[in-house]
Amino acid sequence: MTIPADSVGLVTPQRVTIDTPLLLSCGETLNSYDLVYETYGELNPEKDNAVLICHALSGHHHAAGYHSNAEGEKPGWWESCIGPGKAIDTNKFFVVVPNNIGGCHGTSGPNTINPKTGKVWGPDFPKLRFRDWVNSQAQLADLLGIDAWAAIVGGSLGGMQAMRWSLEYPDRVRHCLLIATAMNLTPQNIAFNELARRAIVADPNFADGWFLEKDVSPVRGLALARMIGHVTYLSQNQMEERFGRELREGSFERGINSPIQFEIESYLNYKGDRFAEEFDANTYILITRMLDVFDLAREYDHDPVKAFSRARAKFLVVSFSTDWRFSPERSYEIVNALVGANRDVSYVNIDTHLGHDGFLSPIPRYVDALSSYLGNISCGGGQ
Amino acid sequence: MTIPADSVGLVTPQRVTIDTPLLLSCGETLNSYDLVYETYGELNPEKDNAVLICHALSGHHHAAGYHSNAEGEKPGWWESCIGPGKAIDTNKFFVVVPNNIGGCHGTSGPNTINPKTGKVWGPDFPKLRFRDWVNSQAQLADLLGIDAWAAIVGGSLGGMQAMRWSLEYPDRVRHCLLIATAMNLTPQNIAFNELARRAIVADPNFADGWFLEKDVSPVRGLALARMIGHVTYLSQNQMEERFGRELREGSFERGINSPIQFEIESYLNYKGDRFAEEFDANTYILITRMLDVFDLAREYDHDPVKAFSRARAKFLVVSFSTDWRFSPERSYEIVNALVGANRDVSYVNIDTHLGHDGFLSPIPRYVDALSSYLGNISCGGGQ
Repeated sequence: MTIPADSVGLVTPQRVTIDTPLLLSCGETLNSYDLVYETYGELNPEKDNAVLICHALSGHHHAAGYHSNAEGEKPGWWESCIGPGKAIDTNKFFVVVPNNIGGCHGTSGPNTINPKTGKVWGPDFPKLRFRDWVNSQAQLADLLGIDAWAAIVGGSLGGMQAMRWSLEYPDRVRHCLLIATAMNLTPQNIAFNELARRAIVADPNFADGWFLEKDVSPVRGLALARMIGHVTYLSQNQMEERFGRELREGSFERGINSPIQFEIESYLNYKGDRFAEEFDANTYILITRMLDVFDLAREYDHDPVKAFSRARAKFLVVSFSTDWRFSPERSYEIVNALVGANRDVSYVNIDTHLGHDGFLSPIPRYVDALSSYLGNISCGGGQ
Repeated sequence: MTIPADSVGLVTPQRVTIDTPLLLSCGETLNSYDLVYETYGELNPEKDNAVLICHALSGHHHAAGYHSNAEGEKPGWWESCIGPGKAIDTNKFFVVVPNNIGGCHGTSGPNTINPKTGKVWGPDFPKLRFRDWVNSQAQLADLLGIDAWAAIVGGSLGGMQAMRWSLEYPDRVRHCLLIATAMNLTPQNIAFNELARRAIVADPNFADGWFLEKDVSPVRGLALARMIGHVTYLSQNQMEERFGRELREGSFERGINSPIQFEIESYLNYKGDRFAEEFDANTYILITRMLDVFDLAREYDHDPVKAFSRARAKFLVVSFSTDWRFSPERSYEIVNALVGANRDVSYVNIDTHLGHDGFLSPIPRYVDALSSYLGNISCGGGQ
């Protein structure tokens, strides 16, 4: 296949073993861990043009470009925004996208080997918190010679990482782009995560998390978990427009007793099944639990203004009108806290029917907002 | 225990075997079936004071009063509204509450014996539609000597039955009270139902629906199904107020690696587990599928005005401000169609944080609305 000219093109994931011990929030220490990441563009001599992309729940390090030019090869998950001349312009920026620890795409996580036992970590992988991700990314920045990120960009739980970065390493973040995110989960968010976890652990093939050891796979539980999540990423309007009450199979006619399947069911089942083939059930449980526990201002007396008073970055906050997973109201809370803390903040609400999934979509006004904001960041002594 | 004076008191469920063949929408016929029901109050000599209560998904025939005066005995599910002097006043009305066919509380359904095989119906119970419920209730009315109902009252899927009644037997319904309902499900509603069904069928103890035959019980799947439903019955606000981000177990403190459980998780798990002990998994699948397929105006060229033009009843429509399962907008659609069809309709939206569950709660303005509307219905030649 021909790779489009506005793509970063063929990319190869990189792997680094970090031997600086990482003290985790839970009290355990990772003496050594692997990080898989991709980079696009070039670090400039001033080393001030690096952008960190924090991926979301189902994301990973492959955000842009292609791993091969085989027919049908799909680009990275944010190809619409990362590339030469795109919103996150690789002619200007050096873009770094690590796969998070605890993930399941090559970085140390439940599906990798625990050096202490020689077996897979499985459910014994340490219970992480967001600051552990941030600290591991800081170690990666050290290795890459990046003192401060020109920008950290994250959507959904990626935005939570970006916020945490701005408090943990205030001098290492110049700009923070918080997209479709929130300072903590609502009880409803937690409820959906718990349903997902319960779907996974109810699958006999989950085997208390030791499915890799036992060579089984909790695909039914994991697929259902993903379906539960997926419903909350879509808006009512979008479902109406895209699926309505159309049938995929069967008939409404009376006297016909064939099984009925609606398009929306078929779609969710398909999405769930595909996800279950490539994701790790322990990672899903680990990360949803991290999400539940995340609370930006907890150690700042639950005062978001006090929390953001620690930050030094400038902020762009983006929400999506029909997002009910992380609603615009949750973004207002961030903006209000930033204003209260005298931070420099821009805010844009994107009118769309795409719900939470909007943050991964090339909605023109959204892409323009990112492009305009990032275009104004100065690097290398110039614009 | 002492039974409150404003209760209908001790009640005994009644059971009738109906031998008039019931031709079902799917083309099959039930030659004979059992209906379990309760009645409260007395049918007047004019036989014009009968009120039919259509129960919702998890409901049944025991809507008011007590089955015993044992300590801790709980009253019927709508005790707050049915009784002497209450909104549905048993001094005035003869209240009839059948358990629907396909249910699991005594009426013929998947957990009863299929006369053709001598074994439980299980998943072979016929695929019903709402009109089948309506027709079976009409047969019950015939047996009880009720030509026309003074009122049919239903919340949620009970409201769908009431609407269908008003079109199938326009001369047998004088008033129709439609509470927290809709003329069909949205794709989002269908999606949640599909998640619930998938949770059930993924449970190995579901055994393709033959769990009773095999003496196993798909409690994990059914509990998860119920939890998925339950999340959608609660409003965001209610969850915030009632549970917030409070912990039931564990600690947020870093360095402490205990499992964390939020109050909302504990609540949902408790509710799901209790439900799974007393409900039938095949009934859950059957009824959620009926809900998905229900579409009031399908055979009226998808024109709700045309559909309601067939009705002769007067209507009260009630919605709840924070109900996102059957939102106020869905009630507006009903009201608009009724207005378009020149029907007599009253509408009230109840301001509450209780979400869809509001329809089962004794919210004063809601109870007043029911009371006032029903108080104005004339029976027996007088008010």
